[in-house]
Amino acid sequence: MAMEAARLSPSLAAAAFLARRPPRASPFFLRRRHPLLRLFASASDSSGDGRAVALSSAELRKRRGLSSSASAGDAASGGDEKLRSLRQLFSRPDIAIDAYIVPSQDAHQSEFVAECFLRRAYLTGFTGSAGTAVVTKDKAALWTDGRYFLQAEKELSREWTLMRSGNHGVPTTSEWLNEVLPSGGRVGIDPFLFSFDAAEELKDAISNKNHELVLIRSLNLIDEIWNDSRPKAPEKPIRVHGIKYAGIDVTSKLSFVRSQLSENGCDAVVISMLDEVAWLLNMRGSDVPHSPVFYSYLIVEISTATLFVDNNKLSEDVLEHLQNAGVKIKPYEGILSEVERLAEKGAKLWLDPSSVNAAIVNEFRLSCEKYMKKKGKAARKNGDKGESSDELRAKGTGSQSGELNVVYRVSPVTLAKAIKNEAEIEGIKNSHLRDAAALAEFWCWLENEVCKDVSLTEVQVAEKLLEFRQKQDGFLEPSFDTISGYGANGAIIHYNPSPESCSSIGSENLFLLDSGAQYIDGTTDITRTVHFGDPSARQKECFTRVLQGHIALDQAVFPERTPGFVLDVLARSSLWKIGLDYRHGTGHGVGAALNVHEGPQSISYRYGNLTALQKGMIVSNEPGYYEDNSFGIRIENLLLIKELNLANSFGGVSYLGFEKLTFVPIQRKLIDPSLLSSLEIDWVNDYHEEVWEKVSPLLTGNARDWLWESTRPLLYESP
Amino acid sequence: MAMEAARLSPSLAAAAFLARRPPRASPFFLRRRHPLLRLFASASDSSGDGRAVALSSAELRKRRGLSSSASAGDAASGGDEKLRSLRQLFSRPDIAIDAYIVPSQDAHQSEFVAECFLRRAYLTGFTGSAGTAVVTKDKAALWTDGRYFLQAEKELSREWTLMRSGNHGVPTTSEWLNEVLPSGGRVGIDPFLFSFDAAEELKDAISNKNHELVLIRSLNLIDEIWNDSRPKAPEKPIRVHGIKYAGIDVTSKLSFVRSQLSENGCDAVVISMLDEVAWLLNMRGSDVPHSPVFYSYLIVEISTATLFVDNNKLSEDVLEHLQNAGVKIKPYEGILSEVERLAEKGAKLWLDPSSVNAAIVNEFRLSCEKYMKKKGKAARKNGDKGESSDELRAKGTGSQSGELNVVYRVSPVTLAKAIKNEAEIEGIKNSHLRDAAALAEFWCWLENEVCKDVSLTEVQVAEKLLEFRQKQDGFLEPSFDTISGYGANGAIIHYNPSPESCSSIGSENLFLLDSGAQYIDGTTDITRTVHFGDPSARQKECFTRVLQGHIALDQAVFPERTPGFVLDVLARSSLWKIGLDYRHGTGHGVGAALNVHEGPQSISYRYGNLTALQKGMIVSNEPGYYEDNSFGIRIENLLLIKELNLANSFGGVSYLGFEKLTFVPIQRKLIDPSLLSSLEIDWVNDYHEEVWEKVSPLLTGNARDWLWESTRPLLYESP
Repeated sequence: MAMEAARLSPSLAAAAFLARRPPRASPFFLRRRHPLLRLFASASDSSGDGRAVALSSAELRKRRGLSSSASAGDAASGGDEKLRSLRQLFSRPDIAIDAYIVPSQDAHQSEFVAECFLRRAYLTGFTGSAGTAVVTKDKAALWTDGRYFLQAEKELSREWTLMRSGNHGVPTTSEWLNEVLPSGGRVGIDPFLFSFDAAEELKDAISNKNHELVLIRSLNLIDEIWNDSRPKAPEKPIRVHGIKYAGIDVTSKLSFVRSQLSENGCDAVVISMLDEVAWLLNMRGSDVPHSPVFYSYLIVEISTATLFVDNNKLSEDVLEHLQNAGVKIKPYEGILSEVERLAEKGAKLWLDPSSVNAAIVNEFRLSCEKYMKKKGKAARKNGDKGESSDELRAKGTGSQSGELNVVYRVSPVTLAKAIKNEAEIEGIKNSHLRDAAALAEFWCWLENEVCKDVSLTEVQVAEKLLEFRQKQDGFLEPSFDTISGYGANGAIIHYNPSPESCSSIGSENLFLLDSGAQYIDGTTDITRTVHFGDPSARQKECFTRVLQGHIALDQAVFPERTPGFVLDVLARSSLWKIGLDYRHGTGHGVGAALNVHEGPQSISYRYGNLTALQKGMIVSNEPGYYEDNSFGIRIENLLLIKELNLANSFGGVSYLGFEKLTFVPIQRKLIDPSLLSSLEIDWVNDYHEEVWEKVSPLLTGNARDWLWESTRPLLYESP
Repeated sequence: MAMEAARLSPSLAAAAFLARRPPRASPFFLRRRHPLLRLFASASDSSGDGRAVALSSAELRKRRGLSSSASAGDAASGGDEKLRSLRQLFSRPDIAIDAYIVPSQDAHQSEFVAECFLRRAYLTGFTGSAGTAVVTKDKAALWTDGRYFLQAEKELSREWTLMRSGNHGVPTTSEWLNEVLPSGGRVGIDPFLFSFDAAEELKDAISNKNHELVLIRSLNLIDEIWNDSRPKAPEKPIRVHGIKYAGIDVTSKLSFVRSQLSENGCDAVVISMLDEVAWLLNMRGSDVPHSPVFYSYLIVEISTATLFVDNNKLSEDVLEHLQNAGVKIKPYEGILSEVERLAEKGAKLWLDPSSVNAAIVNEFRLSCEKYMKKKGKAARKNGDKGESSDELRAKGTGSQSGELNVVYRVSPVTLAKAIKNEAEIEGIKNSHLRDAAALAEFWCWLENEVCKDVSLTEVQVAEKLLEFRQKQDGFLEPSFDTISGYGANGAIIHYNPSPESCSSIGSENLFLLDSGAQYIDGTTDITRTVHFGDPSARQKECFTRVLQGHIALDQAVFPERTPGFVLDVLARSSLWKIGLDYRHGTGHGVGAALNVHEGPQSISYRYGNLTALQKGMIVSNEPGYYEDNSFGIRIENLLLIKELNLANSFGGVSYLGFEKLTFVPIQRKLIDPSLLSSLEIDWVNDYHEEVWEKVSPLLTGNARDWLWESTRPLLYESP
């Protein structure tokens, strides 16, 4: 699955050539963070219409009656009512703000969030996955990117101004606030919904017009107006991710984190990314769609560890598992008190400012300050000159700003999680073979149906694919919303077909299918592009160029310490030779039975991510080509980075390469062999031979025949 | 010619994989600058042994009796005397310092400098091109990089400690000063010899130990002790670079600079890079070896322009040329007074802090301050409240620090000079054909001599090459010291053979020859590697891999706005596939009848240089492979960047590619065709066909026969 094609931040969108969602830990472009949504802050007020569950955005739309056509009406009739209620809150004495910013995500930087946190969608009526709403006393504006312009136009009521991020002259949210608010305005945010970095950046940006950033921690204004109809917080049970799949036990993982704490002179670290908590504790959940994670925070100290989680979700098994690892449990809402306690005992805290939210970081800073003042007073009272405030500061046990007791640094879990161990790799490989079997059955079925002229929509086809996957052992759910795009729809990089408006699959054009699954033992992500009739010479040329890029990256060998962006050009140069390109990165990390998009590595021609590609990491290889209003092509496999045993090792360093994880045929009909070198033809034939050998044992009947046909060798053409 | 293999700055050396001299205008790595040498400050004191001329370092060594063996003795007997004299100056009341830093270069960031500025070589006895000496009251240390460790060991006397830059644990000059000087030391430099950026960085670095950076402007301490034996400043005549070659007249170029001044709200710019002055004024000189430049500064104002140059160098022609362009002349030494004058009249000055020296920048800042104080006093005296100091500051006509009146920005000439115009391109192409003819004659001759078992040393061969080039129209001089390396010497990337110690060319191993020439109409730079006997399978494999990298870069197509480093991997990936690599960048810019190394573009896997490759730029394409103590391989052509007319232009942008400028055969004997794709074999054959067509008309007799033989096609091998 390709990562999102454009960012909301105009500063990134301006770098048009570089447009792609950055991985989390990159040093340059990544200071700008999407704001997050607060979790559970007023969950106890909620008595909504049933338990929240993990739903795809299409399902959510369906359930909430927010289909594209319905929502405009809904927004038109009720939208102003919501805005009116929200603005009434602005003037409450304990709030007293001139504007409020409502971002899209949850408090944990999650790519997929639970329904109760879709506050921006509730407020605006716009259901796209990316967007930020800003409401002032007399204006309401929504920022989203090019993927969602049409949808937002349909879904927003007249009260709302659509801000087309990335378009020329469109201001950022802070530029707009600086423009529309009289100097000295108070701009409110829920600090749980912004990473510390994002909040600081926002504060700086609006200080140009002397606006003040007001952190409203005690309540979320959208929850106040959402009130009874707000869905309940997810309560799905959490399960233990067996050591067979996890490979390393929790005690060892915690030891590693503690060794990192010691090395960095820290006493504790707050882990707030949901996949990091899940990985570290060998636990999985299903609080959000597509990712097997559960809402929680984890604080690891030198001798203890505390999981902040809703107790209801924990079975006996899980409780025992946690006890064995010495992990205590506290309520999810207890995170701030714990952070305050750490400040009071003078702990030095490791915080990842790009992922930990501003509420937590500020709580710690303020508590350090409070603690220092107290100590100072006590010292003065006792005439205790031996522990003056100054001396305490110098000893690093606290300071007015709390800075001395914070180490801002990328989470110690990020890189460890990205480098897969042997058990994880085995699970990933196994799950990919079962996924390949499901896909072979699916493609065999679809080819047959289309040949019989059965009319099937993009959505029906995606549902059928789900059926085939569900038959496989250990299947849990799709790892993202399936991108099922026929013809011109395939050219929309993040196309999400809706039942009401989607196309039918035919034999006149290309069909692009990007999908993935969560299995108990691994996460998959694969794209294939096919034609059920006669592809044009143009389509074959473009497909073959994309394939050449795919092969060039697959075959790359590179010395250790090479960042992913160095290899990006390999996937593009065959397209560049005929003046073509694609507007997305080439590869992203993938979790081990975890998030389908995972940092810190990436392969992209955004140059900011200097993370080296390392042995044991997973990356996708997904070059593409998109001809607007015509067709889309993408060929995606997942790859494992491995160390090679070459005849030389110049510079005394290791040389690395890729091992394929995905084993599904690439449609030969779309390949023009006359454009390929003999090495490239060998690559296709060797790959297909391997597909047959690995996947045919899992198939019978028609699907096995289909696989045999689909993996026959290409013939060489003379040069 | 490959650019230098390592930098003195340990911060760069630590990034071992990225080791290469950075181009001047890159935003990241390039803040760290080599310090420069002051020019002419005490030239009038000098009454040395004759006129200084442009000499290669080997020639300099010869002339000054500083051969490797001689110099150690020289240093041992006289080195301490020089140090003693230098240290005596430390305690003079007008100096009063605890340490003095003596860098290598001149005041203009020149790669090649005149003899009178080789102060570091004079002081230390070490004659290598790169190095920094630091002398304290009781210590003397010299920093140089891996290329020069052996040479420095031989040449330095026992008084000196050799600091092997880039080796583990070796401190930087400032780290060392912080270590050896008692806190609060005074560290002296000649501010003419440091760019403003470099001086500021040094100041910051030593302030950690409360050391003060003392700018000693009135005299250079080395010149004081060098005294009568110091060579005279170069006085070679300057010539007009005809419009036929320059393409654009001076008036137009000045107009361009003035439009840049206006756009940036500036009144004047100081141009201090010698090639920038030469390019802007369509003039050439020969003050330094290898580059046709002359010592000077240029100040361009909105309505005037002033060249600061030694009047003796100007012929009637040149004077008329300058007059026609409205360029006034002032003495070279007048630069500081002029800068002061600009400050006094409240001019806003454009300064490139990475190239303009600290003496000039500080003169301007101090003068602004002085001017402000005067105005302030005058205002107070007259009770003139309408022009308070504060108001002046707000108006940007001056400030206490002078900052308000400075725009720090890369020189407006840098990019304009890098993008060649049609006349320049024509001259470059013509000069490359004549150079190719000289090389064909040379290689024909050498092959014949080696076959006849004539013993020829690396130096003799380089001298013979010079003879062949001298016969060509418009030849001026070599564009750098020829790198003539047989066998193991070829593995030394910047090998500079000396007559006393160099090898003879035989038929047992590879011979690497990297050379270039300055012609009236262009600058060349070419490397070929040959074998006169039977190359081993290993040598052929390595050579063929290097050739594949060369071809891949040559054939690259890329969208506009692509920085050079994106393409670097194309030149390396064939080597990486077998675990080989090379420790230098792949391409550098080249001037139009100017410096052989020119920024701002480069092709390197140092990621810091974001300069886009642009139509009209020249780059070298020079991948290599070096097997220590065994052999070296490099294949280098110069390339012109051109716009391509492709069938598509995705994203509405231009797609660019390369046109070859260098037309000399690549030895077919060293190519293993079984490793090449049919496209790569076609590339070799097409190139050789073009070489024959373009160069054979310039040849007769044996050389023509040699060219015919050397350009016969390779045969395909079946896959």
